[in-house]
Amino acid sequence: MHVMIVGAAGMVGRKLAENIAREGTLGGKPVEQLTLLDVVAAEGPVGFRGTVVIKSGNIAQQETAREWLSSRPDVIFHLAAIVSGEAELEFEKGYAINLDGTRHLFDAILEQAQQTPHRPRVVFTSSIAVFGAPFPDKINDEYLLTPRTSYGTQKAIGELLLADYSRKGFLDGIGVRLPTVCIRPGRPNKAASGFFSNILREPLVGREAVLPVNDDVRHWHVSPRRAIDFLTHAATIDLQAVGHRCILNMPGLSATVGEQIEALRRVAGDKAVNLIRREPDPLIEEIVAGWPRDFDARRALELGFVADGSFDEIIRNHIEDELGGTLT
Amino acid sequence: MHVMIVGAAGMVGRKLAENIAREGTLGGKPVEQLTLLDVVAAEGPVGFRGTVVIKSGNIAQQETAREWLSSRPDVIFHLAAIVSGEAELEFEKGYAINLDGTRHLFDAILEQAQQTPHRPRVVFTSSIAVFGAPFPDKINDEYLLTPRTSYGTQKAIGELLLADYSRKGFLDGIGVRLPTVCIRPGRPNKAASGFFSNILREPLVGREAVLPVNDDVRHWHVSPRRAIDFLTHAATIDLQAVGHRCILNMPGLSATVGEQIEALRRVAGDKAVNLIRREPDPLIEEIVAGWPRDFDARRALELGFVADGSFDEIIRNHIEDELGGTLT
Repeated sequence: MHVMIVGAAGMVGRKLAENIAREGTLGGKPVEQLTLLDVVAAEGPVGFRGTVVIKSGNIAQQETAREWLSSRPDVIFHLAAIVSGEAELEFEKGYAINLDGTRHLFDAILEQAQQTPHRPRVVFTSSIAVFGAPFPDKINDEYLLTPRTSYGTQKAIGELLLADYSRKGFLDGIGVRLPTVCIRPGRPNKAASGFFSNILREPLVGREAVLPVNDDVRHWHVSPRRAIDFLTHAATIDLQAVGHRCILNMPGLSATVGEQIEALRRVAGDKAVNLIRREPDPLIEEIVAGWPRDFDARRALELGFVADGSFDEIIRNHIEDELGGTLT
Repeated sequence: MHVMIVGAAGMVGRKLAENIAREGTLGGKPVEQLTLLDVVAAEGPVGFRGTVVIKSGNIAQQETAREWLSSRPDVIFHLAAIVSGEAELEFEKGYAINLDGTRHLFDAILEQAQQTPHRPRVVFTSSIAVFGAPFPDKINDEYLLTPRTSYGTQKAIGELLLADYSRKGFLDGIGVRLPTVCIRPGRPNKAASGFFSNILREPLVGREAVLPVNDDVRHWHVSPRRAIDFLTHAATIDLQAVGHRCILNMPGLSATVGEQIEALRRVAGDKAVNLIRREPDPLIEEIVAGWPRDFDARRALELGFVADGSFDEIIRNHIEDELGGTLT
């Protein structure tokens, strides 16, 4: 089996590649080739016994997508995107990567299929950013697309394209709308959602973190581990069971900032919690007020996607995966 | 005021141009220029006292859209599209006109705005084809996008683009999802929906018409007159009242084929009804089964869009507008 990851240099892409390399299989089938693509060269995962192909290029160029897809992978994970904040600031660039890039990928698959029958599985990562306020406390599987950012608009368009190209038989598409990934490893960044991770990750290593919103702010989370599980499950699930509405809200963990902090206290004590500095930021408060808080992700649950159990578990898994298993 | 119609050679575009030419105003403001654009040269409307500019070109070409929009119209009606059946048969062509063409238009508006501030009103005609089965008996304003054709997908994407470009302040967009236009003037065509019009229009002039479905098939209709009213109302309505969810399900008339036929009987007698030949066509029955039947178009009604009152009225207006006012 040949597995391709488009957007392999990002956090999710890297963890996905590591996971597949470690397992050596996907859905029980051996993976012989792993192709890692991104705008910069991705790191090759350690310990993979098959062939690793690493290329860099820009999917905003049709030729790049065409060249990449000529290797006719069996499974394609499409994770590549300009993130929310950047797509908002750089309108043309966001559309070039997130919309044109996605279409170039799908069209390159179509062109391959027109040469010799071929119908790869395509896992498209979408986002809860396709939903914008006002919405109900719990968003269900029938909720309408109401993006309020260019990023959310571009993801919604990607979903529609995926469904149409699938319906026409050019690819076997499935889209997963990921909750916010928390705890995101790495250093604090300027994303408005960054604090959800910062207030846990930084205190765990003895560093201060700024909390710009109230403790009662509720949000929808997924751990990196579960996010990777979602992607591999989507890559191997029976699509007959999914049907033609092939974009799914992933199950997440709905928690308030206060609940996150209490989980941190249980796992790492008051010492960690005391490193959280409250600095209300009206701009971030306003942005966050427009984000989904909770979902009833029934379809995904029925299809075997599994959410995180608790923030205690998320924090403990972070310590295991990112901090060598112990707090210093 | 300078009004531009993109897709002016089609039935709706032609009637819209005639309407504006006859009124000489839009929303109470005098119209000095009417620019009519399509892939073929549109006919100029009779009796307009301002300037008429007619051009032909293909909006699948960015340069064409750029050249067209350089005249900086105040109001743009975007009606241009490859129709449903053709978009399904010619995948690339459908995307080139319906998706790329729409984006080229919006981008050309954006480029103008970047040169000198300018924010035209853009009325985008969408379609109930953005909804696909299964759905409830009545579709409400909160119903999700579930297109099951490439045409419906392209219209849904156009809606998302319109909303995003509006949110960013590049244009003042409003989208109207038109019901099926009935009675469509002209000759029978091969559209799967054609029979809804054929069974009224043809018998009114003494010609046979084929009815391929059962009398209890229910569908969602708008007369040509009301469709034009929708467009001119959308062009002049206060967008503050519409808000950021700027795509509206238009109010229509939900009627069964049997109800259409009884209206024909009341207006034109048994003689007309007897010209309807029942020839069940399983393929058309199946296609039609996937179409919306009824809506609760509350938002549009509250915003002053008005539906047809009855099929009797639709038929009488058709006789007035298309048959010189009397049956022969």
